[in-house]
Amino acid sequence: MPFVYDRVIRFHETDAAGVVYFARLLVLCHEAYEAALATVNIDLQAFFSEAGGVAVPIVHTEADFYQPLRCGDAIAVILVPKRLSLHSFEITYTISSQPLAGNPPDKTSQKPLAWALTRHVCTNLRSRRRQPLTPDLVDWIEAVNALAEPVD
Amino acid sequence: MPFVYDRVIRFHETDAAGVVYFARLLVLCHEAYEAALATVNIDLQAFFSEAGGVAVPIVHTEADFYQPLRCGDAIAVILVPKRLSLHSFEITYTISSQPLAGNPPDKTSQKPLAWALTRHVCTNLRSRRRQPLTPDLVDWIEAVNALAEPVD
Amino acid sequence: MPFVYDRVIRFHETDAAGVVYFARLLVLCHEAYEAALATVNIDLQAFFSEAGGVAVPIVHTEADFYQPLRCGDAIAVILVPKRLSLHSFEITYTISSQPLAGNPPDKTSQKPLAWALTRHVCTNLRSRRRQPLTPDLVDWIEAVNALAEPVD
Amino acid sequence: MPFVYDRVIRFHETDAAGVVYFARLLVLCHEAYEAALATVNIDLQAFFSEAGGVAVPIVHTEADFYQPLRCGDAIAVILVPKRLSLHSFEITYTISSQPLAGNPPDKTSQKPLAWALTRHVCTNLRSRRRQPLTPDLVDWIEAVNALAEPVD
Repeated sequence: MPFVYDRVIRFHETDAAGVVYFARLLVLCHEAYEAALATVNIDLQAFFSEAGGVAVPIVHTEADFYQPLRCGDAIAVILVPKRLSLHSFEITYTISSQPLAGNPPDKTSQKPLAWALTRHVCTNLRSRRRQPLTPDLVDWIEAVNALAEPVD
Repeated sequence: MPFVYDRVIRFHETDAAGVVYFARLLVLCHEAYEAALATVNIDLQAFFSEAGGVAVPIVHTEADFYQPLRCGDAIAVILVPKRLSLHSFEITYTISSQPLAGNPPDKTSQKPLAWALTRHVCTNLRSRRRQPLTPDLVDWIEAVNALAEPVD
Repeated sequence: MPFVYDRVIRFHETDAAGVVYFARLLVLCHEAYEAALATVNIDLQAFFSEAGGVAVPIVHTEADFYQPLRCGDAIAVILVPKRLSLHSFEITYTISSQPLAGNPPDKTSQKPLAWALTRHVCTNLRSRRRQPLTPDLVDWIEAVNALAEPVD
Repeated sequence: MPFVYDRVIRFHETDAAGVVYFARLLVLCHEAYEAALATVNIDLQAFFSEAGGVAVPIVHTEADFYQPLRCGDAIAVILVPKRLSLHSFEITYTISSQPLAGNPPDKTSQKPLAWALTRHVCTNLRSRRRQPLTPDLVDWIEAVNALAEPVD
């Protein structure tokens, strides 16, 4: 099972067209990223406030919107990180409806509502240059991918 | 036990002072309101898009901020609704740190981090006048308060 | 003439009820506060990131919502700061429709759409205690109020 | 001169890393889109609430982030729409610092801070199928591009 972040769409995420405002979908994805980082005991406050002099900013993002999301919808974000180079990684996010309780498992193969990607580069704040991914991040990418591997 | 909404503070809720932006605390409170409405099977999408021709807008809000909240903080919002008149009700929200697992129960009596209030008036969209609270809302207020009553 | 912040309501500020989400009105007010601070050459980035070891957090807020605001509405926020004590000040905000170009001046006496208040306390980040308002803030309060005084 | 949307970065757009939160850059771009639509007298409220039974949802977005943006920064968003097919168009956005007053014109050729793209498909809400771009939108794309053409 890959890492899944479950969430209910909230009213403040909708707009006057009655559906989730496009850019808020990327916020949902970042929330999934935060939840996934927390599973390996990365301190979110220190990590995101760049307390250790290392920043990991998003340098690129993309998203495709297939179906609108509405207030009260229960959604699941599946997150898959992938190392791209010594200094960088990307995360893909697939947003689907949460499978309803008691439904047969093949319901999980439903068509996604949206898809997104974020690309991150590890940066030393003192030198203002790229630096190799920290061991914490390397371990995190491996740990999240290990979750998704089939168990014999 | 009163109704409690548990949440982790997310990065997008913080600002450049490193803490939750003041108005986002009211968003957290509204999320708790949505979660509480869902416990009595009120359809959130229909309710908030005012599908039935009835709106329940917030006409007043207040908040006190005692301590800053940071990314990754696990907080609990305790919500208490109270009917004010035939047409209106208010909700008070107390935001605290989530009691840590395994801690003695007196830890729950901790000082709140923030407090807020929202006042709501039931309005008929056709006549543009106040109307009595719908039975759904009257039942909801009772149901949430019944949760908080001590069991003999 | 008091300090006025003009703004057009943007789509992301609306929700599925078709109007501005309640807490976003407080964001509009904070924008007016930022614009007003900039008129006396307070560096917004340094001020809000608390670079000088001084924070001026909002400890209390209140708002009344009289009429809904919609995407594309041109609004005006009138801001009035007032010193409350050695350490604190409050700001009141009155949100109205922008008077239409070419309209007679009495149109400006229109009924406000909303009203809000924020209360701020000057805090020393090292001692974590209240401290007197900085001279910059004292000057700012005076300057904004001087704008509003009638000219003989 | 192409269409330019000028804006000051506000505190609520920053996060605990001290810079603009990545997804808020797309909100800035959508604001520029709204401002550009208003130049040809498209009614924003009717357009975005899909009053005429026609929706123009964003189906894809992309962004590149070159430099962080901070509270108080004065930025300029240059927007260029382009028709893609009978039913669809895309907009590219280039975000730069606002050229400082009194600076020589070549300052405007500065390196952008960010770049983004949104792709929009015209949809009939009744049939739930694609439909040709409305004449209003076709005219708008032409009008914005005409602005950018050099005058002999």
